[in-house]
Amino acid sequence: MSTTTPAGFRAAGVTAGLKASGRPDVALVVNDGPDRHAAAVFTTNRVEAAPVTWSRQSLVDGRADAVVLNSGGANACTGAQGFQDTHATAEHTAEALGVSAGDVVVCSTGLIGELLPMSKLTAGVTAAAGSLTAEGGAAAAEAIMTTDTVPKTAAATRDGWSVGGMAKGAGMLAPALATMLVVVTTDAVTSAADLDAALREATRTTFDRIDSDGCMSTNDTVLAMASGASGTTVSREELTEAVREVCADLARQLIGDAEGAHHDIEIVVQRAASEADGLEVARSIARNNLFKCAIFGKDPNWGRVLAAVGTTSAVFEPARLDVSINGVQVCRAGGVGEDRTLVDLEAREVRVEVDLHAGDDEVTVWTNDLTHDYVHENSAYST
Amino acid sequence: MSTTTPAGFRAAGVTAGLKASGRPDVALVVNDGPDRHAAAVFTTNRVEAAPVTWSRQSLVDGRADAVVLNSGGANACTGAQGFQDTHATAEHTAEALGVSAGDVVVCSTGLIGELLPMSKLTAGVTAAAGSLTAEGGAAAAEAIMTTDTVPKTAAATRDGWSVGGMAKGAGMLAPALATMLVVVTTDAVTSAADLDAALREATRTTFDRIDSDGCMSTNDTVLAMASGASGTTVSREELTEAVREVCADLARQLIGDAEGAHHDIEIVVQRAASEADGLEVARSIARNNLFKCAIFGKDPNWGRVLAAVGTTSAVFEPARLDVSINGVQVCRAGGVGEDRTLVDLEAREVRVEVDLHAGDDEVTVWTNDLTHDYVHENSAYST
Repeated sequence: MSTTTPAGFRAAGVTAGLKASGRPDVALVVNDGPDRHAAAVFTTNRVEAAPVTWSRQSLVDGRADAVVLNSGGANACTGAQGFQDTHATAEHTAEALGVSAGDVVVCSTGLIGELLPMSKLTAGVTAAAGSLTAEGGAAAAEAIMTTDTVPKTAAATRDGWSVGGMAKGAGMLAPALATMLVVVTTDAVTSAADLDAALREATRTTFDRIDSDGCMSTNDTVLAMASGASGTTVSREELTEAVREVCADLARQLIGDAEGAHHDIEIVVQRAASEADGLEVARSIARNNLFKCAIFGKDPNWGRVLAAVGTTSAVFEPARLDVSINGVQVCRAGGVGEDRTLVDLEAREVRVEVDLHAGDDEVTVWTNDLTHDYVHENSAYST
Repeated sequence: MSTTTPAGFRAAGVTAGLKASGRPDVALVVNDGPDRHAAAVFTTNRVEAAPVTWSRQSLVDGRADAVVLNSGGANACTGAQGFQDTHATAEHTAEALGVSAGDVVVCSTGLIGELLPMSKLTAGVTAAAGSLTAEGGAAAAEAIMTTDTVPKTAAATRDGWSVGGMAKGAGMLAPALATMLVVVTTDAVTSAADLDAALREATRTTFDRIDSDGCMSTNDTVLAMASGASGTTVSREELTEAVREVCADLARQLIGDAEGAHHDIEIVVQRAASEADGLEVARSIARNNLFKCAIFGKDPNWGRVLAAVGTTSAVFEPARLDVSINGVQVCRAGGVGEDRTLVDLEAREVRVEVDLHAGDDEVTVWTNDLTHDYVHENSAYST
């Protein structure tokens, strides 16, 4: 149930001393082949961290032999020195593994605007390279945690091949400063092009549809690596389906562990005129602070849902909108529906359905409520 | 210092029993002329409340004799009955004043999705009509409060004429569910067209540039009325300048009293390539929950400012961005600048300057921090 579930991968997680807490903070996942296909999706934030710039370039050829990840520092907004540090990390990792630095992906997460303590980091990389095992996926998942309370791993097993993965953070592909980092591995025999297509399609409907607080990190990276070690050749469709299963599992875990959240909110927009319309509406609700506060207060405040929908350019008639919260249709035809006191918001999981009556598309986005604990965690994060 | 500062206006505020608190909840402002020019700017939310639909229509002819405002209920998402109730309120007000219902503007604020108690409301309108005075502006300002802690009034006095105003709520022309309602009066001799132009120009750089929590209400209304009672004819420019002064004063008061806020944050985007660029950047910072939590925690977290700027499509080079917080340039050329511990965030007012190095435009947007109290107020608002 991790990045080392598929054959051909070894991983490790060690404590390098980057985190004040003394918890593990350097992870390594190595692809022992025979294939070294790799693909990635990165943050769209124009202020991108040095490791994103490096990794984007290193993956142009569709190959990666390893990924080195550190928590305890994002290496973002660190200028030329920051990029040199990422480069040095890749070089050091490559040397320890006997591969080319250009085939080492680098991921970092933590505070922005501070240089990494390089001697600690390189010592950690050396230690990680020395402790790689085919059972190291769990240790790697633990070493990439920041504000996460639990490590997040997943796997999808098929006939003779599998997909594994790990994740940290909370948000969408553009999440909270608690950067989202994801590594997905597979031992399927595939091509770099199919791996890239599978990852993009899987990401589009999983990590792109979770939105904890609407904020976009400088470091988000979702990396996929294929070893071919199973000897089983799969179609693009089979691969996509399995990668999607792992990504969906990890995405749901991210929402379930979002900073300070008390509720996980599934927003389902029904009968949208297009997928784009449905997504715009779902996101507008997911990013509405007033609605998110109401759910924290166990208040089925459908007026705030309608007010959010009204800010979009989606096709809908205000007088036809229906809203159900946990199965109770509190808003019918744009007005008062069933008795709102019937809505039970005690459970962590909340389902909000908005029927636009405008077409056939349905889109689901997951978010969290806005709580005292969210404010506390994010006002105290760096101080 | 209120809507009755200019000559030609009477106002009143009474308790009709719409609010559980027993505080004043119905306000009336009447223009006794000789002119009855009026103009308004409304929410752009497509889910608009019945009073907005009514008032938009009633102002097509550029004339209003009176505005009746109630707190204690927004009359939004209330269907055909809600619109009939707004119509009945206008009719009742018109009868009490001896004017045409089509010249009565209606504003409502409070919870969405509940019908107004019409017998209480009409009794309140009768009482308000009977207690109109030329000194009633303060009472009217008190009667439109919802989560406001203080009434908000302002005036700008010129040679022989003046502009007055009142406001409630917190946000921008698209604010929190705590709808923004504003009434601006003047005794200048002007035209309906000049009044409309002055209001739009003043609003664009005042109410449109405050953004407490990025949420857009269904009821926001900014109404201007001109009586001509001063006998002083003014140019469009003179009028715009004075209306802008009153709107800026009221806007600053709204931010200063935003729900649960501990800091008022002035975001100044400098050297933008265009006004639109500057506005997009300023808004992206104003709506970034992580940044707003950091300010609450007195943490000069400039990384979150850069992460917000990076989500925009404005013209800038990441490596040229400068950020100053309360005069300390904590980020220089996209990287670490002066020592962040030099930043003092004890005072309520915070100034964040972002230099894009991309042009000559400067845009200022005001927002608030995101606090425990914001979450508390907005999770407990309806329960």
